[in-house]
Amino acid sequence: MNPILVFDFAGIAVFAATGALAASRKQLDIVGFLFLASVTAIGGGTFRDLILGAPVFWVVEPAYVIVCAAVAVVVYFTAHLIEYRYIALLWFDAVGLAAYCVFGAWKGLTLTGSPTIGVVMGVLTATFGGVLRDLLANEPSVLLRPEIYVTAALAGSATFTVLTLAGAPLLAAALAGFLAAFLVRGGALRFGWSFPPYRSRPGRRQEDIFK
Amino acid sequence: MNPILVFDFAGIAVFAATGALAASRKQLDIVGFLFLASVTAIGGGTFRDLILGAPVFWVVEPAYVIVCAAVAVVVYFTAHLIEYRYIALLWFDAVGLAAYCVFGAWKGLTLTGSPTIGVVMGVLTATFGGVLRDLLANEPSVLLRPEIYVTAALAGSATFTVLTLAGAPLLAAALAGFLAAFLVRGGALRFGWSFPPYRSRPGRRQEDIFK
Amino acid sequence: MNPILVFDFAGIAVFAATGALAASRKQLDIVGFLFLASVTAIGGGTFRDLILGAPVFWVVEPAYVIVCAAVAVVVYFTAHLIEYRYIALLWFDAVGLAAYCVFGAWKGLTLTGSPTIGVVMGVLTATFGGVLRDLLANEPSVLLRPEIYVTAALAGSATFTVLTLAGAPLLAAALAGFLAAFLVRGGALRFGWSFPPYRSRPGRRQEDIFK
Repeated sequence: MNPILVFDFAGIAVFAATGALAASRKQLDIVGFLFLASVTAIGGGTFRDLILGAPVFWVVEPAYVIVCAAVAVVVYFTAHLIEYRYIALLWFDAVGLAAYCVFGAWKGLTLTGSPTIGVVMGVLTATFGGVLRDLLANEPSVLLRPEIYVTAALAGSATFTVLTLAGAPLLAAALAGFLAAFLVRGGALRFGWSFPPYRSRPGRRQEDIFK
Repeated sequence: MNPILVFDFAGIAVFAATGALAASRKQLDIVGFLFLASVTAIGGGTFRDLILGAPVFWVVEPAYVIVCAAVAVVVYFTAHLIEYRYIALLWFDAVGLAAYCVFGAWKGLTLTGSPTIGVVMGVLTATFGGVLRDLLANEPSVLLRPEIYVTAALAGSATFTVLTLAGAPLLAAALAGFLAAFLVRGGALRFGWSFPPYRSRPGRRQEDIFK
Repeated sequence: MNPILVFDFAGIAVFAATGALAASRKQLDIVGFLFLASVTAIGGGTFRDLILGAPVFWVVEPAYVIVCAAVAVVVYFTAHLIEYRYIALLWFDAVGLAAYCVFGAWKGLTLTGSPTIGVVMGVLTATFGGVLRDLLANEPSVLLRPEIYVTAALAGSATFTVLTLAGAPLLAAALAGFLAAFLVRGGALRFGWSFPPYRSRPGRRQEDIFK
């Protein structure tokens, strides 16, 4: 087995947990847990594979779906033990983001040979599952939160891609990419790191509908 | 013609009607009816075919699009006769759900041979059109309603898949799957059937943003 | 280079600008600008290519992604010069809509030979990027606005398709389609053109939840 698949399964499992946590916040039933866990965990990779023209990974290997289902059931029976479930969701999401940006970048780079596509696929794989989760669960989108999010995926994908092009061993590049993404996103969660947001002029009111 | 296509056309027609009813609730114009009817009716099957790597059904046979357009026009001129249009939408949606979970499971099972993929494709085909409709029309998502929804698609897909693997004739398995899904969803609509929702502890307030 | 590609690059650039303008309205950071600009600009064409079974255009030619990134950076540094950014967004969106409905119709017609698929692909390419932008940026959907929107894409796609089938030269049909779509959408923006919205009966209240 290719050792990079560790990042794929880690991403699946923690993203499934975030989907199940979102289901717990919406007080859905067990099937709602299964559905949101699966869509969150396999959504980003599904888009990645469709866009790359590769066979969709979980159709080739249905065990991925079983992993999602198992995680959803475990969260259903244990989420009440977690005091701050939205914070748990954000941290699991950070781990999934870091794992998936590396795996997506590897798959994009391997299949097309283009570093640009590798980086874009890393970002897309890492962020789309969470975007789908928030859309379907009607949560505020993680994309629009003030602290850094997409940037972390970009940092991880770019780190992995640059190191790989520079000839680093696969697992070293993957670990470095994972750490880059997780440290950026973790710092953003812990310390509220953010880029200066866009402001057209001082003191403008966000409510101005045409501005 | 393969008789299972009856379920496909039935699903198309009633899902198109739900999209057009959603358009009527948003007071869109005739082109808005055509758009929402088409996206709702062919959205689930489009994702199914993309994920399975099959040619998209309505690109192969554009008559499906014509059916959507015809249904949208009929609803545009008759919706005012229906007193409770949201309730009509929910019942049409139930029929479409039942028809599409059978057809999706059949297509997934036939193309991949995997029962897991068959069941997942049945659920995905049956639910994604409605999810898209609610997202685009800015309606509350049918997924987040308290009564049973995804479960009905799961019941129908699983019934069809198990009976088919057990050697039942195609149409018998399809009818049994259709009835299983429709009875579960119809019972949920009529009697408010629901699984116990997830609750972390008694009396917790849904507004707690981090819990 | 096929001259119809002019419409493709024009569509990319102005849709990227609308995504970046939406990011400026949400006060996102520079990476948020890059993300929303890219999704808006390449979202519609990505769905078009997936559905047609064609290789996704920006995977084949990553320069499209670079164009999106460049436009996002330019808008990041110049948007404060624009007084009414939402109005600018709507007019750029109108140009993108007109360019993309022609290019989408050409690609759909060329790849399948079916005029129905050509028209549908024109509408889908022209409208889906904007739909994604509004969903991700949590803006009111351009689809649900009272004035004409999808109709303009339909007018442009149909004009191009009919003229092409009638034997008109490619660029003449493309320009006519572009003008048809832009005049319809521009008139709608300037003069508030709309079809009569659907109304079930005089004076009914929009809040009636089941009607």
